[in-house]
Amino acid sequence: MRANKPKGLSINKGVEKPSSLNTDAIRKGIYKKAENLPLAKYMDGILKGDRMILGRAITLVESSLADQHEIAQRIIEKCLPYSGNSLRVGITGIPGVGKSTFIESFGLDLINKGKKIAVLAIDPSSDRSKGSILGDKTRMEKLALHEQAFIRPSPSAGTLGGVARKTRESILLCEAAGYDTIFIETVGVGQSETAVHSMVDLFLLLMLPGAGDEIQGIKRGIMELADLIVINKADDNRIEKVKLSQRDLLNALHLFPPTPSGWTPAVEYCSARNGSRLDLVWEQIRKYEDLIKKNNYFNIQRKDQAKYWFYETLNAELKRQFFEDNRIKKSLKKFEKQVLSSEISPFEAARQLLETNQKNTV
Amino acid sequence: MRANKPKGLSINKGVEKPSSLNTDAIRKGIYKKAENLPLAKYMDGILKGDRMILGRAITLVESSLADQHEIAQRIIEKCLPYSGNSLRVGITGIPGVGKSTFIESFGLDLINKGKKIAVLAIDPSSDRSKGSILGDKTRMEKLALHEQAFIRPSPSAGTLGGVARKTRESILLCEAAGYDTIFIETVGVGQSETAVHSMVDLFLLLMLPGAGDEIQGIKRGIMELADLIVINKADDNRIEKVKLSQRDLLNALHLFPPTPSGWTPAVEYCSARNGSRLDLVWEQIRKYEDLIKKNNYFNIQRKDQAKYWFYETLNAELKRQFFEDNRIKKSLKKFEKQVLSSEISPFEAARQLLETNQKNTV
Repeated sequence: MRANKPKGLSINKGVEKPSSLNTDAIRKGIYKKAENLPLAKYMDGILKGDRMILGRAITLVESSLADQHEIAQRIIEKCLPYSGNSLRVGITGIPGVGKSTFIESFGLDLINKGKKIAVLAIDPSSDRSKGSILGDKTRMEKLALHEQAFIRPSPSAGTLGGVARKTRESILLCEAAGYDTIFIETVGVGQSETAVHSMVDLFLLLMLPGAGDEIQGIKRGIMELADLIVINKADDNRIEKVKLSQRDLLNALHLFPPTPSGWTPAVEYCSARNGSRLDLVWEQIRKYEDLIKKNNYFNIQRKDQAKYWFYETLNAELKRQFFEDNRIKKSLKKFEKQVLSSEISPFEAARQLLETNQKNTV
Repeated sequence: MRANKPKGLSINKGVEKPSSLNTDAIRKGIYKKAENLPLAKYMDGILKGDRMILGRAITLVESSLADQHEIAQRIIEKCLPYSGNSLRVGITGIPGVGKSTFIESFGLDLINKGKKIAVLAIDPSSDRSKGSILGDKTRMEKLALHEQAFIRPSPSAGTLGGVARKTRESILLCEAAGYDTIFIETVGVGQSETAVHSMVDLFLLLMLPGAGDEIQGIKRGIMELADLIVINKADDNRIEKVKLSQRDLLNALHLFPPTPSGWTPAVEYCSARNGSRLDLVWEQIRKYEDLIKKNNYFNIQRKDQAKYWFYETLNAELKRQFFEDNRIKKSLKKFEKQVLSSEISPFEAARQLLETNQKNTV
């Protein structure tokens, strides 16, 4: 069960309030260097589906230490030929919508159908106030204990881009370990949805009955990303409200332009707590998977996503190198102030700042 | 009237199919160097509202020749203190929705109310097939001839980012020349909407009666950007269909999360051809303007936009410098191929490519 233990919690035992900057140093103290296995051991373990080894490999993926990162990259390269054979499902929804209950019930249901479930998260879990479900291990206990499931909390700190990258790499390892259905969880109130959307095959939005109220919490644009909307907490005593929400949402979706997949987004409802109608949710997912595999959108999207992450990583790194330069940092503030007070046009400010940079490097 | 003459057309007279690469050279041949005025002349002319001088200043803004660009930047800096005093309205909609008729009728209406109207475009007009209205001067003839209006076609070629930048700079010059209502037109089928949205105070989406049919042509996400949806071609004989569309759209908008401005997007209808109900469209725009000026969102958004363009320009330039490097270009193709065939993870490919770059500069 060790691999399923949220790293954040075990770290917290030893030290009070770990700063986001030294978690790696702390981790280094806990997972001693002796624990680094030879590459072959990691590969053996992963391909055999050993969850403890998988968890340790993901710890390497998440590490920002150069030597651990190096091993992680070699593991990923070796896993690549065994990866790709899963359905990657993004799940989002505001806190309180019941994401953890849904993932647990739905996951257990799918395990009964013969699936192997991995659950990953994309919101840095240090950001607890936003309600990242996987930071809290006390939820999803049954699923966490099941040997056909692998649950991994989000890396405990980092930028969204960094965490997203680590999550995407972790997907590959989970696939190599035989997990055929991978849930990527995100909170649905922040910037993470585009990142999740760029690494999943299907994007599922969980909502509450009475759309229009709780929609307040969802960021604009997220609804248009959804392939499937599921109204959760559709208990018997509010079935009328649920059906009204379903109709409203279907009407709204009808007004959206068609998705590039050729799929018409569907609206289902269920009660994750009672386990009712989860089979209908699965049926929609299956229908969607069938369609995009038949019309080849599945492969097209996967390739587009790989390309997206390639360019996204390049761009992020170019920016990082530029903005972390000390002289740039200094001038940047001055120029930004001038731009905000309309003393200089944003374009001219950018030109002058870039000139500073070129003088630096010459 | 010369300033209103689409540059593309006058160029086309002299040469067959000008390549997008040498338009500046061609333009140089037509607008001889002798035509470059001293800075003070440009400023005098612009501040007096001389449309010919304004047009020539914008030609400098659009130029990619270093010396012309240099003068343009000085003009822009000098115009900055006189800029900002307009309402900037983005107008989008698919080809066939009647954008040019709408802008002409609406613009003439506003001139009757005492307004001065400038019309700019953001889609590179060389991209004719996409239906950029301003590339075609034969439309909007009445507005083009009116001395309280200034119509400028989009720069004839360039990347979207480049054209967007030039359009945003041209807005400043038009404001310094006293235009108090500025329309930025875009086609609504491409990538330009985010760019337009980042330079206007209000984003207006033109639609046809019977939403759900023509929505097919609109890119996903655009509807959520709209502050105001106007159903055009609402002629008497299809008023029922129009009202149905209006109701459907209002229902859909109700399901969207609230806008950051605190404004609830409205849905109006009109017939630009008959000139009916244009006053109601203007009333909505006025209401919106009142609200965002009272709650200060007007200023907040303007500052956010300036900041956005500052960082956007920096990022675009960093990317350009990187991707135009010949050795990067070569390796890029190799890595992209490996990424697409899953031989290498996108992150590792990016890391290796960046390593190549660092070796280059050392």
